[in-house]
Amino acid sequence: MAELESEQSKSVPVKKSEDFMGWYNEIVERADLADKRYPIKGMNIWRPYGWSIMMRVDGLTRAEMERTGHDEVQFPLLIPEHLFNKEADHIKGFGGEVFWVTHAGHNKLDERWLLRPTSETAMYEIFGLWVRSHADLPLRVFQICNTFRYETKQTRAFMRVREIHFFEDHSCFATYEEAEAHVEEDLAIATNIFKRLGLPVLMSKRPEWDKFAGAHYSVGLDVIMPSGRTLQLGSVHQYRTNFSIPYEITYEKEDGTHEHVHQTTYGMSERVVGAVIGAHGDDRGIVLPPAVAPVQVVVVPIPFKGKEELVLEAAQAVTERLREAGVRVKLDDAEETPGSKYFKWELKGVPLRVEIGPRDIDGGHVMVALRHLEKVKEKVPLGELEGGVIGLLDRVETELMERQQAFAEERTIEIGDIAEGKDKAGVLVGAWCGQDACATEVETTLNVKTLGVPVDSEPDASEDSCVTCGGPAKHWVRWAATY
Amino acid sequence: MAELESEQSKSVPVKKSEDFMGWYNEIVERADLADKRYPIKGMNIWRPYGWSIMMRVDGLTRAEMERTGHDEVQFPLLIPEHLFNKEADHIKGFGGEVFWVTHAGHNKLDERWLLRPTSETAMYEIFGLWVRSHADLPLRVFQICNTFRYETKQTRAFMRVREIHFFEDHSCFATYEEAEAHVEEDLAIATNIFKRLGLPVLMSKRPEWDKFAGAHYSVGLDVIMPSGRTLQLGSVHQYRTNFSIPYEITYEKEDGTHEHVHQTTYGMSERVVGAVIGAHGDDRGIVLPPAVAPVQVVVVPIPFKGKEELVLEAAQAVTERLREAGVRVKLDDAEETPGSKYFKWELKGVPLRVEIGPRDIDGGHVMVALRHLEKVKEKVPLGELEGGVIGLLDRVETELMERQQAFAEERTIEIGDIAEGKDKAGVLVGAWCGQDACATEVETTLNVKTLGVPVDSEPDASEDSCVTCGGPAKHWVRWAATY
Repeated sequence: MAELESEQSKSVPVKKSEDFMGWYNEIVERADLADKRYPIKGMNIWRPYGWSIMMRVDGLTRAEMERTGHDEVQFPLLIPEHLFNKEADHIKGFGGEVFWVTHAGHNKLDERWLLRPTSETAMYEIFGLWVRSHADLPLRVFQICNTFRYETKQTRAFMRVREIHFFEDHSCFATYEEAEAHVEEDLAIATNIFKRLGLPVLMSKRPEWDKFAGAHYSVGLDVIMPSGRTLQLGSVHQYRTNFSIPYEITYEKEDGTHEHVHQTTYGMSERVVGAVIGAHGDDRGIVLPPAVAPVQVVVVPIPFKGKEELVLEAAQAVTERLREAGVRVKLDDAEETPGSKYFKWELKGVPLRVEIGPRDIDGGHVMVALRHLEKVKEKVPLGELEGGVIGLLDRVETELMERQQAFAEERTIEIGDIAEGKDKAGVLVGAWCGQDACATEVETTLNVKTLGVPVDSEPDASEDSCVTCGGPAKHWVRWAATY
Repeated sequence: MAELESEQSKSVPVKKSEDFMGWYNEIVERADLADKRYPIKGMNIWRPYGWSIMMRVDGLTRAEMERTGHDEVQFPLLIPEHLFNKEADHIKGFGGEVFWVTHAGHNKLDERWLLRPTSETAMYEIFGLWVRSHADLPLRVFQICNTFRYETKQTRAFMRVREIHFFEDHSCFATYEEAEAHVEEDLAIATNIFKRLGLPVLMSKRPEWDKFAGAHYSVGLDVIMPSGRTLQLGSVHQYRTNFSIPYEITYEKEDGTHEHVHQTTYGMSERVVGAVIGAHGDDRGIVLPPAVAPVQVVVVPIPFKGKEELVLEAAQAVTERLREAGVRVKLDDAEETPGSKYFKWELKGVPLRVEIGPRDIDGGHVMVALRHLEKVKEKVPLGELEGGVIGLLDRVETELMERQQAFAEERTIEIGDIAEGKDKAGVLVGAWCGQDACATEVETTLNVKTLGVPVDSEPDASEDSCVTCGGPAKHWVRWAATY
């Protein structure tokens, strides 16, 4: 009874279906992902379980970077003010959002240094030294690091923080066309990563007024959260020569003349973890895609009086076989009721639970519960244990994506005019004439942001009329309320 | 001829044997480890090759942490001044060496924040929340992160920098004895890591006047560099309750009473990379232990007129076989002379070079050159390729350690009195009566530092006389000039 009470007291008090953000704020702590009690606003502690998920996301990213020939580097965190000030739009965009180091020990610094909000201005001064001739191109590097932004809005674990775990790919090319091809490659890389996470990502070319500070254009990577609002997980930017001119990154061509390089970047933050939690979780806790689950399978022995030893040995054997097959598996042999173990591992989102009791042993199988479904168990014969479990892990990955794709479709609402967008919770898609004022009128009327023109699909808008002015349309555009 | 000239211009202009530090400063850039041109003193850029080595060192550390049940976390970089100020000795030790963030955007902060020089004061406030009862102990966590110190002395890549890539293990225990056992475990972990790096490490209990700010005692981990000076790579500290009292980290015992936890830490920095470079390198470049070499084996086809295709195919097959055997192997099939390739990969310290030409193919073998030796090549039959090459990698690891052990012995000089220590370049070992003044007189007379009492071996000093006062000795002590 005492145990039952303690289980109840642990159960998540807020239902995801009723209050998404209330549930989210609660679940990130209950599932041991983050501790939000650090005494600086928006700077949280990664607990072991959360950090393990983040590192596995980084692992997916690194694998994609290695596959595509990008080199990993690490640049300093601190940027001298004079470097930061070289690109005018960039300062305008970030100037009010950075933290300043002004003193060292008991001395005032001659020049202020800022904590990188992103690393363009740290890297590009050095790229000018690394790139001398066409033989040095393309230069394709990335880093995974901590970045900082002075958020004044309400902070939220993983989604809006002041110290941000960040991935940034910075590449230089001889021509605009090669840089364009790299934008495409980065978008393909993003698709690969998000596929493993079960996240269908919207790729939209941001409008001029919302592009990255200094960019020629920006493509935002957004996912639709359960509330219907979108969360931007990253972005890919085409800089053209906007940075290479002030930072003097030039290369000598074969004919001896010099040209500025064309640059692109691809940035992605710890928001990816926030999206995984937000998209897949349910009232019982979080639900992890197998690719990033610290524990993919938990094995729970179902005790039976007099057969405890037998059951435990069978559970150990199953655990060992799965481990040898490369599965991240944990045997939970604690002195607790199976129900209490189910509760704990469901809260933490372990994709599969293998149950094994005397009847299973007699029957020569195990029962496997799938975390992402309600009360679905599959019987896996012991003779096909490894293949059966790995097959189920693949199924989880596929089904998480299918479910999110169905959800995204359901929450994508085509509108013919602004009125049709009223009180809709999701991504509004409509035709647009190309005039800024028409897009921003949608923004102000419906309290949404312009995500931009889809680049993942390019529907023809030439037969349609602008949702605002009714004039001939040039593009389809996405709008949504955003986090 | 043009190629020969370019090779010569690249060759290292400073000999390690003639000017160790001159060679070191040069080699870290030539071997593509670091770029020292970033415009803040002591903040260097990790180039891909150097960063890959660092990440492999981190990999060794993580594997040891996982083996011994430590959990990885990530705490914020910034520490509010009031937290930092809780432990008086700690502030005294670090107060003059930290960087201060005073402004965010256009606002002055209400309280100054500092960039962590190490994370005691960030973590321990939170440990007080994590540890409530004896069931929460032991708490064993670690993080790998960037730390900052305001170095005013001359900086040097990896050895003395202002942004430091850092590993820190912070653990809490119910009793002093358990904390003592953990100090032993940490020292065993260090031994395992340094064994893979071919670095015999001296473990010495630092004297009172040189222990870590706030520690009960500190054990320094030092290696002897080619110059005879030592470089401290890390340290293990016993804090007793020195931090748990001001930070109020207590636990409830089974009898309902409360006690302060006993704490230990183990810190290790990017100096490990500096030591690897410094210890093993030679006039031809760096020499990497296989465990951390980004490329363990480079395969160089030896072209022969008319048989280019045959040789290349054989080299590709060898490369593929080694890759499948889990070796980090690179085929260098560039349009360059073999000599130019040898030069390049020797500079970068690749442990083994596999050469394959028409005669090798006919003979059914490859020739393998060992980077750490002068002109030593071993013949490996193609039928035993994988086992043969992996066996040679093991041999490299063993021989690097043996060579360093022999060097350390040669540079460990036993002295009977201070005079015997004059003009000796190495670690001086002598008996000591236990009085501070006697140890510090050695320091000032010989211009050395007291490394401390050996804890890796505990020679009996009871029959000996103090090197300074001639009185009865209590301990043996190590002294050395240090970096």
